[in-house]
Amino acid sequence: MSDRFEADYLIETPIDPARAAAVMAGEQSAGTFVKVPGETPELQARAGAQVTRLTPLETVEAPSLLGGMTGARYHRAKVTLSWPLDNIGPDLPNLMATVAGNLFELAQFSGLRLLDIRLPRVFGDVYSGPKFGIDGTRKLAGVADGPLIGTIIKPSVGLDPQQTAEVAGTLAEAGIDFIKDDELQANGPACPFDARVSAVMDVINAHADRTGKKVMYAFNLTGEVDQMRARHDYALSKGATCVMVSLNSVGIAGFLALARHCALPIHAHRNGWGYLSRAALLGWDYAAWSKIWRLAGADHLHVNGLQNKFSESDSSVIASAKSLLTPLFEDAPCIPMPVFSSGQSALQPPDTYRHLGHADCIYAAGGGIMAHPDGPRAGVAALRQAWDAARAGIPAATHAATHPELARALEAYRK
Amino acid sequence: MSDRFEADYLIETPIDPARAAAVMAGEQSAGTFVKVPGETPELQARAGAQVTRLTPLETVEAPSLLGGMTGARYHRAKVTLSWPLDNIGPDLPNLMATVAGNLFELAQFSGLRLLDIRLPRVFGDVYSGPKFGIDGTRKLAGVADGPLIGTIIKPSVGLDPQQTAEVAGTLAEAGIDFIKDDELQANGPACPFDARVSAVMDVINAHADRTGKKVMYAFNLTGEVDQMRARHDYALSKGATCVMVSLNSVGIAGFLALARHCALPIHAHRNGWGYLSRAALLGWDYAAWSKIWRLAGADHLHVNGLQNKFSESDSSVIASAKSLLTPLFEDAPCIPMPVFSSGQSALQPPDTYRHLGHADCIYAAGGGIMAHPDGPRAGVAALRQAWDAARAGIPAATHAATHPELARALEAYRK
Repeated sequence: MSDRFEADYLIETPIDPARAAAVMAGEQSAGTFVKVPGETPELQARAGAQVTRLTPLETVEAPSLLGGMTGARYHRAKVTLSWPLDNIGPDLPNLMATVAGNLFELAQFSGLRLLDIRLPRVFGDVYSGPKFGIDGTRKLAGVADGPLIGTIIKPSVGLDPQQTAEVAGTLAEAGIDFIKDDELQANGPACPFDARVSAVMDVINAHADRTGKKVMYAFNLTGEVDQMRARHDYALSKGATCVMVSLNSVGIAGFLALARHCALPIHAHRNGWGYLSRAALLGWDYAAWSKIWRLAGADHLHVNGLQNKFSESDSSVIASAKSLLTPLFEDAPCIPMPVFSSGQSALQPPDTYRHLGHADCIYAAGGGIMAHPDGPRAGVAALRQAWDAARAGIPAATHAATHPELARALEAYRK
Repeated sequence: MSDRFEADYLIETPIDPARAAAVMAGEQSAGTFVKVPGETPELQARAGAQVTRLTPLETVEAPSLLGGMTGARYHRAKVTLSWPLDNIGPDLPNLMATVAGNLFELAQFSGLRLLDIRLPRVFGDVYSGPKFGIDGTRKLAGVADGPLIGTIIKPSVGLDPQQTAEVAGTLAEAGIDFIKDDELQANGPACPFDARVSAVMDVINAHADRTGKKVMYAFNLTGEVDQMRARHDYALSKGATCVMVSLNSVGIAGFLALARHCALPIHAHRNGWGYLSRAALLGWDYAAWSKIWRLAGADHLHVNGLQNKFSESDSSVIASAKSLLTPLFEDAPCIPMPVFSSGQSALQPPDTYRHLGHADCIYAAGGGIMAHPDGPRAGVAALRQAWDAARAGIPAATHAATHPELARALEAYRK
């Protein structure tokens, strides 16, 4: 594997899966739809992709995606392709065109999904991975143990800088560890980035001076490359300890331009993930997609949350979170902090902890904190109590008997 | 519309479509899953998204996408949302998070696809659009009229710089107007960018000196931002007249960093488009997606080709190509040159011209030129003859009677 890279796919095809896999390999390396002069056996040996594994799966009667070849039945299989590293070098943008380029729409397939990728170690020399990750984030946030209890500024958009700072102040007083901008709020004329950073950091710095606890606030600096770098510098100068970026809004080249410059943890938001993943037989599995961003330097990566407001199943959420713990390389694991978020409240910590097996995460709730009937302080307390109980193996209802904030939350957010 | 932006969606939902549309509007502006303190009527009026149109469509029995709410039937509708420009300002990266962020996976939807977007005129002040477009490309390529007959270096990957230059030389001798790197070839160790540019431009410049015709070669500079800018500068210094970039491999922030720096036409490759578009009730329509890249500065945009090797229908290909002709703004139309490519040969020009209604395009064939039985010169000639006939309203078979290259091509590529 050291001089080749690999990708796993789930495919569905009306033709022989082995033949379909050979088409993928040809299209994504040295082939085209007719034989051309320079396509020598020697060139094929040097630059051709290979089908290294093929595992037949079930057969179905109807195609998952329309428009391609048709047949009486459609065969699913798991396929692994491998390419010589010399085709692209250790290069993330160009890896995309090779493993996830012009293949999803090939006529031979009624389904094609990228499941995972494996890269040679040299990628870990070219790309830094998370500069902070779990340990660096814990240090900056002053949370040695347990989840960082986090929240999102709500309403998502519509507050001006001063109003945002007031909400941040309320949350800081409430005992929060982590606050993030909503992904809808970056640098709108009604809430410019610099003015927001300045107003919010005044509040956070004052709170830190008073209490010794510096709340980590992830400022959404999503924008063009020069803007992101300037915003990062400004946030750093004001004492901020985290920046946030929407991955699908900037793309990998823009992200790398930020990451190579960045001296703060990068909170990586995956909004748009639905269009990349929601069709079961198309697009990306989280394990493949997140590896690219992990390598590129994402310190925190969103994984949705259990019993979320979206359509994603709990098993998918947990699989995503666990995939982040898979080391990319033995000596360069590139492990980011998973961020649980979306419709979270004091209800989900027991299951989250049970499935995850650890508490190295950011656990973010919006309405789950701000809409606690006794206010945000009780909302934060209820989340901590829920996690404390989960980690101690105490049922939430038992813990709630002596913890009124948790009791009120369990009642208020009951589904 | 002047101070608001709009997006059209195709939705499918088991609940009342009006209620589902209201959820979208809330999620993508000032709402969350429970009411929070700052969510005042005044803030909603200022920052809330509105459902401005809802057109019910058919009802279906099975959901297109799984995982969300279920029902006895699923209602499809076309929905338009509008947002105050002040939520984001004229900002393309942040437009993405608003119109295409966390909504595709909302549980209320068993289908959600972004069809189109409409932006206030001020976007045209902040973003340049294509700097060259159709006219600028024609001037640089020396093709005043008719399509630019183009091709892709094949084999896609595996040739070294000298071998690439030899293929380019053969194609130049064959009378080609336009050559592009394959998207699989950018800066691999086996074919480094600078060495390839140097070798290829020696051949192209020499051919231009000899014949007066300078073939336009789109060098694939896909990479990180600083790499792309440096590669652009190197290509420009060697007399190149075009650069190419894989849009989904770099993303919008990286693309803008290149485009703002770029003094050559940008050939914008859409590889990966399949994962964004192939599920009928998910992702992006080309009209919406391409507007973002047009505004950002794409001079040439790929639209696939008729009777292509992929799963896309001819009507979809033509709809894509025609959507590029829709002006973004009356005084800043941002119209790029459509690129037809994929399994093209002398067979498809009549239909392409009939549907398109003009010949302002790059018409690229790989095997369709290189695998012509009488060689690439005959391949190029056959394509020109096919277009000449189409534009003159002469049936291809009639024209072939007096044009042997076309005759041989029609026979060789017959399906």
